[in-house]
Order: sequence, then structure tokens, then C-alpha cells
Amino acid sequence: MGTRDRIVAAAEQVINELGLARATTREIARAAGCSEALLYKHFSRKEDLFHAVLLERMPALTPAVARLSGQVGVATVAENLEEFARAAIAFYRRSLPLSSGLLAEASLLTGFRAMLAETGGGPHLPILLLGAYLREEQKIGRVDADADPDSAAALLLGACHHRSVLGSLVDLGPDDAVAPGLVATLIAGLAPR
Amino acid sequence: MGTRDRIVAAAEQVINELGLARATTREIARAAGCSEALLYKHFSRKEDLFHAVLLERMPALTPAVARLSGQVGVATVAENLEEFARAAIAFYRRSLPLSSGLLAEASLLTGFRAMLAETGGGPHLPILLLGAYLREEQKIGRVDADADPDSAAALLLGACHHRSVLGSLVDLGPDDAVAPGLVATLIAGLAPR
Repeated sequence: MGTRDRIVAAAEQVINELGLARATTREIARAAGCSEALLYKHFSRKEDLFHAVLLERMPALTPAVARLSGQVGVATVAENLEEFARAAIAFYRRSLPLSSGLLAEASLLTGFRAMLAETGGGPHLPILLLGAYLREEQKIGRVDADADPDSAAALLLGACHHRSVLGSLVDLGPDDAVAPGLVATLIAGLAPR
Repeated sequence: MGTRDRIVAAAEQVINELGLARATTREIARAAGCSEALLYKHFSRKEDLFHAVLLERMPALTPAVARLSGQVGVATVAENLEEFARAAIAFYRRSLPLSSGLLAEASLLTGFRAMLAETGGGPHLPILLLGAYLREEQKIGRVDADADPDSAAALLLGACHHRSVLGSLVDLGPDDAVAPGLVATLIAGLAPR
């Protein structure tokens, strides 16, 4: 493992142990076994380091999104969405100490928000990508022509994200048990038939 | 305003300004203009104080849930859900500094989790109450007999909660604009007709 990767791994470990507010560059450098100066050579801003942790140490969502784009017309839409939902819940669970730490403190939030605006990244991208998958399924008639793929994506990923929060605070049983009900409801809708 | 209410108001203010991790009883007592001893007389555990802030200073969700139970058979299901969704997004927005602070630090999370287990409270309750409303609408035929009200409630509140997080990090336009699309999609479903 190179120095950069060691720093990113150490940052995740320190965030999980101490919380983001106390994950100082000093603590992270110590855990990585390098100097703070070397850390700053790789990550000039703390925000960049946290972003690297999200993207590189918690990769569950990226491969799930990539897999989805290959599933258009394959298996059933329900099966594809269920598999995606399970990966999303696992990702949100793992990233919760970091993501909630960013939201909890105004100064960190402001810096991270500015970084996302600059890079065009952000936590809304998986919704757009899931919406794009549903739009492809719509083109081949596996999703209703009148459906709104982006709202459907926001509902499913929202429920997955919320589940990671709820499950951290209250014992709600295994996460995987909820995916089929969410997906079936999203597909069938509430309107009387 | 009595001492207890002043302490709860001061706690919300300090959490918003400094973040939960730095919202010490010392800071809160100072902002409330009372002694730490007096604060502890009203709130023997910091968790109880944070819970009071959530329930008493951020009341948007409780009246919205109460209102919903009076709307069974009234207006349309879509209108009722849209109004509820707007209230939920506003509530989650306002509670984000506190709720994310609780999730961000292992020690706070453990204490809050234990308190919720003891009191039977928790952030999943609005989902159960929204599910109960949908079940009543199901009984009078305004929601499909085969629908799963609890999954539908988890989808809608999940999307509202997620929106509060996404909107804090990325500029996504006005929150209120998303409610109609979420509700319409939840009602109509994705299955081809």
C-alpha cells in the first residue's frame, strides 16, 4: 500500500473510532505512520481527504451502479432494483460516521459543499444514475411510459439511506429484509386497480 | 419562558452554532443564563436534553402526523401525502445538525440508542404512523387492497429525509418542488399498464 492509500485507510479508521469532528490531520497522520507535512502533500484540503475516503474506501455503490447499467432488459426490473437496494443500504451504513460528521458541523459542511460545487460531484449522483437505468428500462417497455424515473430513484435510494440511519438508532431487524417490500411497492404503486 | 424551556432553546441554538460534538452542558448553560447544576436538575442525562430539543423545538412532524389521521377520506390521498411530505422535509432540514451530530459520534450514538430502546421512541415512528394512515385509506378503497402501506411510508419518508441531506450538500432548487413527483410516482407505481 502506497503512502496515499495508507493515509486514506487511516482516515477512515480514525473517523470511525473518534468521529469526524475529532479526526484531525494529526491523528490521521499518526495512524498512517507519516508526518502531517506528507499528508498535506497528498491532500492539501481536509475535504479532499474525506472525499477520497468516501469514494475509495466505501465503494459499494459505484460497482452497484455500474452493474445496473448492464442489467437493462436482463433478469427482472424488481430483481435488479432489489440487488441495488441491498448494496445501497450497505454503502450508506458504512459511510454514516463520515457523512453524518460532515453534516453535523457547519464549518465542515461549508467546505465540503464548496468542494462538491467545484467538482460537480455529490450524493445526488446515484439517484441520477438509478434514474438513467429506469429510463432505459422504460424505453424497452419494462417500466411504464408515464412513470417518472427520477422520482422513483429518489424514493428507493431515499428509503435505503433512511434505513441506514434508522437501523443505527433502533433495532429494526436485518436490513436485507426490507428491500423486496420497498421494490414491490415502488413497482406496483398505491392506486386502486 | 421557564428555566427548562430556556435550556432546551439554548441547546438548539448551541447545537446549530457549534455542532453537537461541541455543545457541552457548560456552553448550553451559559447560553441559557443558568448554572450547569440547574441544567442537570432538569436533564440528568445529555441524551434527555437532546431528545427534548428534537421533540419540542422541531415540532413540524408531530402536527403533520396528527393532521394526517384526520384526513382519511378527505381531500385526495395525493394531496394529503404532498402536504405531509413538505412538512417532513422541513422537519428533517431543521433537525439535521442535531440528528447528524448524534450519528457522527460513537459515544453519543450509543447513549441515544439506549435511551430510545428504554423509552420505545425513535425516528421510525413517523413511518409507522404514515403507514397507519395509508392502512385506513386502504380500508375505504382509496389505496389498493394489495398495497403495502409500511413500505410505501418508508419510501416517502425516506425520500424526504434524504432530500434534507442532499439539499444541505448540493444546490438542488426548492425542496417543495419535489413533493408532487414523489407522491405521484408512489401512487402510480412503475409497472407497465
